[in-house]
Amino acid sequence: MNAPANIAPLDVKAQFPGIPEGWHYLDSAATAQKPQAVIDAITNAYAHDYATVHRGVYERSAAMTRSYEAARAAVAGLVGGDPEGLVFTRGATEAINLVAASWGEANLNEGDRILLSRLEHHSNIVPWQMLAERTGAVIDVCPITADGRIDLSALEEMLSEHHKLVALSHVSNVFGSTLDVRAAADMAHKVGAKILIDGCQAVPRLDVDVAALGVDFYAFSAHKCYGPTGVGALWAQPGLLDHMPPYQGGGAMIDRVSLEDGTTYAPAPARFEAGTPHIVGAVGFHAAADWLSSLGREAIHNHELGLVAFAREELSKIDGLTLYGPDDSAGIVSFNMDGVHGHDVATILDDAGVAVRAGHHCAQPLMDYLGVSATVRASFAAHSDPSDVSALVEGIYKVKRIFG
Amino acid sequence: MNAPANIAPLDVKAQFPGIPEGWHYLDSAATAQKPQAVIDAITNAYAHDYATVHRGVYERSAAMTRSYEAARAAVAGLVGGDPEGLVFTRGATEAINLVAASWGEANLNEGDRILLSRLEHHSNIVPWQMLAERTGAVIDVCPITADGRIDLSALEEMLSEHHKLVALSHVSNVFGSTLDVRAAADMAHKVGAKILIDGCQAVPRLDVDVAALGVDFYAFSAHKCYGPTGVGALWAQPGLLDHMPPYQGGGAMIDRVSLEDGTTYAPAPARFEAGTPHIVGAVGFHAAADWLSSLGREAIHNHELGLVAFAREELSKIDGLTLYGPDDSAGIVSFNMDGVHGHDVATILDDAGVAVRAGHHCAQPLMDYLGVSATVRASFAAHSDPSDVSALVEGIYKVKRIFG
Repeated sequence: MNAPANIAPLDVKAQFPGIPEGWHYLDSAATAQKPQAVIDAITNAYAHDYATVHRGVYERSAAMTRSYEAARAAVAGLVGGDPEGLVFTRGATEAINLVAASWGEANLNEGDRILLSRLEHHSNIVPWQMLAERTGAVIDVCPITADGRIDLSALEEMLSEHHKLVALSHVSNVFGSTLDVRAAADMAHKVGAKILIDGCQAVPRLDVDVAALGVDFYAFSAHKCYGPTGVGALWAQPGLLDHMPPYQGGGAMIDRVSLEDGTTYAPAPARFEAGTPHIVGAVGFHAAADWLSSLGREAIHNHELGLVAFAREELSKIDGLTLYGPDDSAGIVSFNMDGVHGHDVATILDDAGVAVRAGHHCAQPLMDYLGVSATVRASFAAHSDPSDVSALVEGIYKVKRIFG
Repeated sequence: MNAPANIAPLDVKAQFPGIPEGWHYLDSAATAQKPQAVIDAITNAYAHDYATVHRGVYERSAAMTRSYEAARAAVAGLVGGDPEGLVFTRGATEAINLVAASWGEANLNEGDRILLSRLEHHSNIVPWQMLAERTGAVIDVCPITADGRIDLSALEEMLSEHHKLVALSHVSNVFGSTLDVRAAADMAHKVGAKILIDGCQAVPRLDVDVAALGVDFYAFSAHKCYGPTGVGALWAQPGLLDHMPPYQGGGAMIDRVSLEDGTTYAPAPARFEAGTPHIVGAVGFHAAADWLSSLGREAIHNHELGLVAFAREELSKIDGLTLYGPDDSAGIVSFNMDGVHGHDVATILDDAGVAVRAGHHCAQPLMDYLGVSATVRASFAAHSDPSDVSALVEGIYKVKRIFG
């Protein structure tokens, strides 16, 4: 098989020390490998610049505080937002839980409605179920179209003035289908609801602009953006953050603590960053943002679209293989093979040096809808190239031979 | 001035690339510098072993999952606990917030009482204030003794059957005073209360054994233990964890997610680790635990006691300097100078290459009690040596000359 000529080669694999020659890493939707520039930024922060932030009065600590705030600006810039709306979190999961616990408990009451979609990741389902249980709010589920997109026509019909929140994925982590966020935001706002977008799979490849998209809350993680583990971000309209009660209590999020007179809190975003932050995580996230910008996410996205098209074309030639999701999937190809469990597919591919994920992808409601317990998912990144697709396809032919 | 001969030199400064020759880092109570072994473990995890945990079916992911669980065992071992009671968190602050939100909301009702002490860090005050506001529970404040210890006689007198929780620091982050945790735990249990210990300043220097101490919850962070930022731990009696409702919702903490039938949760500790964890943080925490064990915390503690004694002896010779805390402080020397604000002291020390913290140390209620807005705090670590003390003392004489 030959790769189509229109795959613009990004040629950055050599920047990834974690991908040895002959290993085909196709699990970037779970977590991205790290370019050397990000690893160096992390190492350097620990080995040369390390100090706490906010509280030190010596120069090293002041410098680290400047680096931390520069990281906030850079990470906010990844989604086109103001730094004052950017809260560093433990990850996208914590970002969504923060909104559910803080904004949600303050604003939702019994009978209010939350609208999710059938294809959401568990991180964009369970926090809302927990909130619904605490408040008496009700969850509605927007269906998806035959090609695996959130059905915007259904969304528009379902929305009512009872809806206080719409929470949707920008890019599906199973299908790679992309939401028209602006259209969904307009629909939500028309009925007076806020909209939260899970941008985990979008930020590594799309030029997200929260202002142009008109979103209220946008959650994403560093580790899927070629950055470090343990750090993510919530971007929120600063006017919303200002009125949200604190989430976790502790140092750095307070104005004044008194055991007799009660405690007052710092303004946002500090109010939502209790305790010593993941200082080096923020510095590494900054390096990842710079690395993404230097390549250009449009170039990454186009590169991945070419790889998806190549993979789908080759896989569609295989008898008994079912492809899910749309042809223009953003970097993700999900499929199943008749009569072979996904875990067996993945295990045989692993022997062939191809790392894919098989499972429910933290999207059990979508698996239930598809009538399967798992799919096999190959997901691409900036460093992926046609040899990765060829290895995947050859591996699938091997599965066919073994399970023949 | 001459260092006393009984300071056992640990001689590990050369292992810390972040401490250049001539720089005296005396802010380890805020955050510890990192030994090369920890930095190498972090770099190696990103550059060679990186993959997600729990969900991959390829070998690299299986290996990283084994590393993550080995880290859980090693970090639990730091406090003598079973791994099944060890939850990785964003830090000690999140660990305490987790207990407040999950155990606290499930177990506290209006009129129940929580007992804290006057010297607690904000992270062990604000979560309980927030819980008290939500539940109607009441907070009592145990006084401290003249030499800066939690007053155990007062604690015993104050405790009643209305107390459901006692939350105290093992080692004060301002005074370095050490609590007799076993005695406090026995008093708490006698009235049927649970006891949570903030171990942030203890784990880097004391051989903590949660079984021998008899505690219910023990919170600590990696970054104060020579480990990475963005990760900490809650150790809890497994029997308690098992009955606590989830804290954050998301991937990895579920058993089964359904939009129609509701969601069921994984057993502890996974139930409390929603989302992709700070994988490399756990690996780095493991390396820090190994590094601490290789040196031996008893040796570190004795080394620091010698440095504290030397520093207190020299500082006590200076007119107009007030020393706080007990003589056997665990690695921390807090003081003030008449007529000079702590920030000015710290700034002049910074010019002399001595990094100390000046401020309220996230312990404003203690500052109020002392009648000051700030103290200057010099805090030691395994790499500290008598030259650091000499530089501090010489710096203080310089302050005296400038403010004459």
